Amino acid sequence: MLSLSKNTTLQKMLHKHLPVLAKSEALGTDLIEQAIKQGSMVLLANPAHENVIPTIIGQPARVKVNANIGTSPFMNDQAQEMKKLKLAWASGAHTVMDLSTAGDLNAIRKDMLAECPLPLGTVPIYSMAQKYISQKKDPANFSEEELFEEIARQAEQGVDFMTVHCGVTARAAALARESNRVMGVVSRGGSILARWMAEHNKENPLFARFDELLDITLKHNVTLSLGDGMRPGAGADAGDAAQWEEVIVLGELTKRAWERGVQTMIEGPGHVPLHLVQGQIQGIKRLCHGAPLYVLGPLTTDSAPGFDHISGAIGGALAAYFGADFLCYLTPAEHLTLPDGEDVRLGVIASLIAAQSAEVALGRPGAVARDLDISKARAGLDWEKMAELALDPPTVRHRRLGFDDKEECAMCGEFCALKMLKDF
Amino acid sequence: MLSLSKNTTLQKMLHKHLPVLAKSEALGTDLIEQAIKQGSMVLLANPAHENVIPTIIGQPARVKVNANIGTSPFMNDQAQEMKKLKLAWASGAHTVMDLSTAGDLNAIRKDMLAECPLPLGTVPIYSMAQKYISQKKDPANFSEEELFEEIARQAEQGVDFMTVHCGVTARAAALARESNRVMGVVSRGGSILARWMAEHNKENPLFARFDELLDITLKHNVTLSLGDGMRPGAGADAGDAAQWEEVIVLGELTKRAWERGVQTMIEGPGHVPLHLVQGQIQGIKRLCHGAPLYVLGPLTTDSAPGFDHISGAIGGALAAYFGADFLCYLTPAEHLTLPDGEDVRLGVIASLIAAQSAEVALGRPGAVARDLDISKARAGLDWEKMAELALDPPTVRHRRLGFDDKEECAMCGEFCALKMLKDF
Repeated sequence: MLSLSKNTTLQKMLHKHLPVLAKSEALGTDLIEQAIKQGSMVLLANPAHENVIPTIIGQPARVKVNANIGTSPFMNDQAQEMKKLKLAWASGAHTVMDLSTAGDLNAIRKDMLAECPLPLGTVPIYSMAQKYISQKKDPANFSEEELFEEIARQAEQGVDFMTVHCGVTARAAALARESNRVMGVVSRGGSILARWMAEHNKENPLFARFDELLDITLKHNVTLSLGDGMRPGAGADAGDAAQWEEVIVLGELTKRAWERGVQTMIEGPGHVPLHLVQGQIQGIKRLCHGAPLYVLGPLTTDSAPGFDHISGAIGGALAAYFGADFLCYLTPAEHLTLPDGEDVRLGVIASLIAAQSAEVALGRPGAVARDLDISKARAGLDWEKMAELALDPPTVRHRRLGFDDKEECAMCGEFCALKMLKDF
Repeated sequence: MLSLSKNTTLQKMLHKHLPVLAKSEALGTDLIEQAIKQGSMVLLANPAHENVIPTIIGQPARVKVNANIGTSPFMNDQAQEMKKLKLAWASGAHTVMDLSTAGDLNAIRKDMLAECPLPLGTVPIYSMAQKYISQKKDPANFSEEELFEEIARQAEQGVDFMTVHCGVTARAAALARESNRVMGVVSRGGSILARWMAEHNKENPLFARFDELLDITLKHNVTLSLGDGMRPGAGADAGDAAQWEEVIVLGELTKRAWERGVQTMIEGPGHVPLHLVQGQIQGIKRLCHGAPLYVLGPLTTDSAPGFDHISGAIGGALAAYFGADFLCYLTPAEHLTLPDGEDVRLGVIASLIAAQSAEVALGRPGAVARDLDISKARAGLDWEKMAELALDPPTVRHRRLGFDDKEECAMCGEFCALKMLKDF
């Protein structure tokens, strides 16, 4: 149970936006309020993020999709990232994370918050590493104070949710080393913290000083996205001791956060073979007391670089069916390079397909009605209606160009099965 | 059990190719022979198809992928279809079906058989309908004799497998009408036969004269792909009485085919919500006595026109995990238009991802080793090795252009998690 009484910011935002949220999600206001109190749902909304569209994540709200954008050392073009932000939004993403690691991170974040009504997430540890990397220094040179100051600054700026790898403890890192993982630690934030711990010979400050983190984030209703620094980066690494140790810790921290009134989500895998997805999702949900689960994929094969939006959609559909609440997109660029605009579009659409597939299987009324309505439009050869109801209308319209005077589609023409039996 | 002794053509092909098949599939020769005798595996190989690569489909051989190509009334360009054939092959498809419905079908088929070492499948009923449609006549004008002559001609030409909608019985068609399906009959072949039955007021000749069909196909070892004319064309139609009635009939016909020594595969859905895939696959396998199952998708949502290779990959991965043996690709053009070359490529790759995901989950040694090897290459930042092992090497190489002098990828640069902990 979340101590809602201790989070006056959340109370205010909830009170203000509950009617609109209930309407847009087709859920009762009581149900939403109850779920937020239980911690099984979060309301992403930092009042300092002006124009933010308050967004709920968690059962039984609609499955949400996040798009990661941001500069990288080899592709540092802020204008391009702003374009990607708009493309992600236009394509149907519900949230955006700014994962910039090059340029003036503070300015980029400020601009994104100003332009982006979608809840914005960040990974504050990137700012630490970037500060020292840009000075050709060791990325682990930052002090604990600097890190907490940066988190406070971002909270004040209006960041709605933050990935904090609080579960990358000395014990979890040791277990990862001992288990001879194929891919080691693949989380950037997790690896920066592990490096810091090794160099400073100290426990992860985000774990050791977790109460301070709660104090900083409570004021602005920043939702903590408890990062999975130990997530498997290869199917063969899924479910090892390091991964579960981190999940156990995240479950403990979730209870502590809830006691202080701070909302949390849990970040999940990663690379997970298809037959293990159910156990992973149900195990994480159990150990983390039903907190909303935010998954990256999971990717059901390691062999599809260039098409990881597809392997991610396979795992994402299954994960959402078994209880994941929030899908972080994967783009065709994953494992290869920074996504371009078209990658962003394709990544969002693939995740929407996974979410819709899961919601149909779960019998969610909105999703079932959408599938039924588009099928009826298809049966009636009503192309404009099909485009309207499609997860990506522009693609449907584009592919009909040149054939829009025809009733049938250009695949079958007079062989249209629907027309073949029309007069019977 | 298949009466192998009655199929001397199959015996000869099996004897000739067994050592190569065993090697390429990493299976024992006894196991393959036994599976073919049981009917749980088929050997696609018509001796009249010179240069054919004999291909086995069925547990525990590798999951295979088929690409549909062919002309349509609105897009009738044979040269383009030959290009698509080569693209399908180059992208990793194991078989090709010529679904041409415009132009000189006989000539197209002949050219494809000459050019294509992959087993080639057809739907002979299309030739019947096209003959009359091209003369502006009713597609159901053909006689039973014409149909059987066409099937015999295609068998002699070298077609390796044929879709025959033998289960579209009067009873199944009546059930489809009574059940008020959203999408009715979406199978082109099924709808042509249903129209024929209604106009001629007779039972489906492919059902009524099934023994003649067996006589014609036995000689050339044509594998019957028992078509699913009653497959659901919308998630809401999945699992209705018409669909299961057809499956029951296909199971009965399979036993009759096996008694005569004719190999069969069963064609399956279609549009199936995620939570029903397991029951559909296991039900069809049970009712059809373990004959190889050839699925079209299944698509886990109806709302993704333009991206049905992705909704098909979600359903295909699950279907193959639960026992489907053969995945017919879906391309981004499905439901909209005839696929172009890039659609063919994307369709094949999406199906290969589904197959690989299923095989990894099933613990198939080759698939597990591939995922492990590419992960090791990734951990070692060995880009050329990653490209080699990827399901689509050209995409990996293409996306690395301009960054191929860099050790890290352009997503993370100096933030590479793998390098962050290298010195620890």
